[in-house]
Amino acid sequence: MEKTDVLVIGGSAAGIVAATSGKCHYADKDFLLIRKENKVLVPCGIPYIFGSLESSDKDVVSDNVLTDAGVRFIVDEVISVDLEKKLCKTKQGLEVSFDKLIFATGSRPVVPKWLNGAELDNVFTIPKDKEYLDSMLEKLVDVKKVVVIGGGFIGVELSDELNKRGKDVTIVEILPHILGRAFDEELAVEAEKVLGSRGVSIKTGKGVKELFGKSKVEAVILEDGERLEADAVVLSVGYAPNTAIASEAGLDLNTLGFIRVDEYMRTRNPDVFAVGDCAEKRDFITRRVSGAMLASIACTEAKIAGMNLYKLSTLKTFSGTIAIFSTIVGETGFGSAGLNEANARREGFDVLSGTFTGVDKHPGTLPGTHKQIVKLIAARESGVVLGGEVIAGPSAGELTNIIGLIIQNKMTINNILTSQIGTHPLLTGPPTAYSIIKAAEDVMRCKGDL
Amino acid sequence: MEKTDVLVIGGSAAGIVAATSGKCHYADKDFLLIRKENKVLVPCGIPYIFGSLESSDKDVVSDNVLTDAGVRFIVDEVISVDLEKKLCKTKQGLEVSFDKLIFATGSRPVVPKWLNGAELDNVFTIPKDKEYLDSMLEKLVDVKKVVVIGGGFIGVELSDELNKRGKDVTIVEILPHILGRAFDEELAVEAEKVLGSRGVSIKTGKGVKELFGKSKVEAVILEDGERLEADAVVLSVGYAPNTAIASEAGLDLNTLGFIRVDEYMRTRNPDVFAVGDCAEKRDFITRRVSGAMLASIACTEAKIAGMNLYKLSTLKTFSGTIAIFSTIVGETGFGSAGLNEANARREGFDVLSGTFTGVDKHPGTLPGTHKQIVKLIAARESGVVLGGEVIAGPSAGELTNIIGLIIQNKMTINNILTSQIGTHPLLTGPPTAYSIIKAAEDVMRCKGDL
Repeated sequence: MEKTDVLVIGGSAAGIVAATSGKCHYADKDFLLIRKENKVLVPCGIPYIFGSLESSDKDVVSDNVLTDAGVRFIVDEVISVDLEKKLCKTKQGLEVSFDKLIFATGSRPVVPKWLNGAELDNVFTIPKDKEYLDSMLEKLVDVKKVVVIGGGFIGVELSDELNKRGKDVTIVEILPHILGRAFDEELAVEAEKVLGSRGVSIKTGKGVKELFGKSKVEAVILEDGERLEADAVVLSVGYAPNTAIASEAGLDLNTLGFIRVDEYMRTRNPDVFAVGDCAEKRDFITRRVSGAMLASIACTEAKIAGMNLYKLSTLKTFSGTIAIFSTIVGETGFGSAGLNEANARREGFDVLSGTFTGVDKHPGTLPGTHKQIVKLIAARESGVVLGGEVIAGPSAGELTNIIGLIIQNKMTINNILTSQIGTHPLLTGPPTAYSIIKAAEDVMRCKGDL
Repeated sequence: MEKTDVLVIGGSAAGIVAATSGKCHYADKDFLLIRKENKVLVPCGIPYIFGSLESSDKDVVSDNVLTDAGVRFIVDEVISVDLEKKLCKTKQGLEVSFDKLIFATGSRPVVPKWLNGAELDNVFTIPKDKEYLDSMLEKLVDVKKVVVIGGGFIGVELSDELNKRGKDVTIVEILPHILGRAFDEELAVEAEKVLGSRGVSIKTGKGVKELFGKSKVEAVILEDGERLEADAVVLSVGYAPNTAIASEAGLDLNTLGFIRVDEYMRTRNPDVFAVGDCAEKRDFITRRVSGAMLASIACTEAKIAGMNLYKLSTLKTFSGTIAIFSTIVGETGFGSAGLNEANARREGFDVLSGTFTGVDKHPGTLPGTHKQIVKLIAARESGVVLGGEVIAGPSAGELTNIIGLIIQNKMTINNILTSQIGTHPLLTGPPTAYSIIKAAEDVMRCKGDL
């Protein structure tokens, strides 16, 4: 029988941050983290073990992060939790009593039940599981033709990386465009151009009917009958929250299957928290329950849980989740924060949008200058920014974070117009035409104020 | 006799943006810009014409920016303004009547009056003057030893660029460290390490006594008697606002010599505006008059003037200037926004600071990963962020802009702790250790809350 004050189930980003920031705030409490994985992968780095990183060993989170912070950990699997007795049981027969419990059980790749052939050899998913991925990497060595099903961020990153390794890659997406949930059409088309120019074949607006093969997969059959030869198939069609133990313990799940939590990441039981991919999120703007799963969101939630374990010490100054994505294909970074225009309209918002195309250095004659496109979406009456999209060079990630901060601060287009920024020839666009401010001007122009 | 609705004096960043954004808002008005320069240089690009750009021709602002926006321009020099008659006279004998007037007359390099030898051949300053700089570039071709006096941003950038061209460069700074106005000591030292490792000699805490030579400069004599051999000397010790015409026209100057303006960049005369380097600024935090001169500040002011020429149409949502700087030496970017810790303490603020050293990609094993240091300075009681400093890779500029936005939104350390950011392996630091949030945690630790 093991005893702890705070038990964290799950050892990926959410679990690590919940435990370490909790320990930091409540140093006199004992923190125990139980995780299934022998070694934990940096989650967002996973697509890069297929190309840029030479091996998954370069994508491992050091256990020192936990031990240096004074958090104990056990490699084992929690199989049940008794919330009344405050006791959990593990696969290896351990019993752990706790005072506070944090679910950070993450998510797993979805395999559509209706998909025939998903059980064939060389059909893979992308779980956060080092052993699985190492074996997959090995099997991919001699493979030539790979079909990636799903053109979201992971599918796109993986396709580009496999392409770098010399594979013949085709990406199949059922929506009209890749990255179509994050980007409006005109920006998604740019992503397709970049990915296509690097040698990845892109098939959009195409559903998959089945996977074909004897023991090993041989082809992907599309709904329109087209047959794509394949030595391997990667399914990247989404992730489902791991909530079985929480649900069996009597905690509520929401309509999307996430563990219900309040603003401080507490379940109905004030001693039990949930954070990360398994925890409920509401969209910052639409207030709808959201299925967003990002390590950055997980870490923010984990920090909030960690700080508020024993008392609500930290007033959470935002309410709701903003999906802030970024990625890079070749030299071109893509980012998105909040609602895109199509989604905003679908939600019923009366919106204005504005776009500016500039450069990321100035003068644009400087070597290494990259095109920079910023689109902003704002509510027509209030002018409050609802979302933004970015195409840029290496600063695309932080530029997207600026838009994320604009949304969180409920800044209006007018606020942006009169905002102060810093510029430098080699680091940013020009002071006369800083993309975010110029995009705001373009929004005003739509409104007729310019 | 020429007639216009809005006359803009000065054709650099401030003048261009005031005229074009004014025209954009008041399309039925005639806008005329008068400038001295035949060709206008991108101001922040000037240090780079000495290295990265092959010629000043690559650093020219196209006149299309004006003409495409419907702004007329004349190359001439305004020599006097009669505010009562609303009339100005030029060097070439032109008379121009106007309804509204915008001073965007900029600044000029300071040459200390007490400095003997400043008149010698091969002693240069860095004015925003293409002819002067082209001739200087030519004279520098055969020069070997260059001494740059002044270790601010321009001095540092220039030294690095001249060093790239194979010059033997020494930078002399009277303060204890280069970039010492923007950065606290521990970060300034990093800048010195980077610049030094690239081959620039750095002499700090050294005043200059005089420049020595017959007709051409031969040496710089320091106050402590040391003699630095020099084939050329560049004085980069500051800029003074060009306000003679404004002053002669009866407008008020403040104690630092800038044209007095209100929040909407209007002088005491509601038809006369001043923007950019010649216009008064107050510090966002200290409320003191500020001598900051940055193209980015100039453009914000110019936009505000342009929008509010005929009516106060745009509520300015901030009050006061935040100096937001960034630069890059080799592969290392440096940025600073608001007050640094030393300045904040000097102003009498009771401050807390926190610093985090991380990486700009994740995992840090990814090729091209750069160290990232973020320091935040906050008021102890309120937790409001007063300033921040950044050392990073190519995202240093936008990371500094994030801090600038944090200051403008009067965000507290607690706001930052619970902020949402987006991360990507190749574009940002890790979600578990995003530098700005970790620096905020370090501030909390100082406060004893962690």
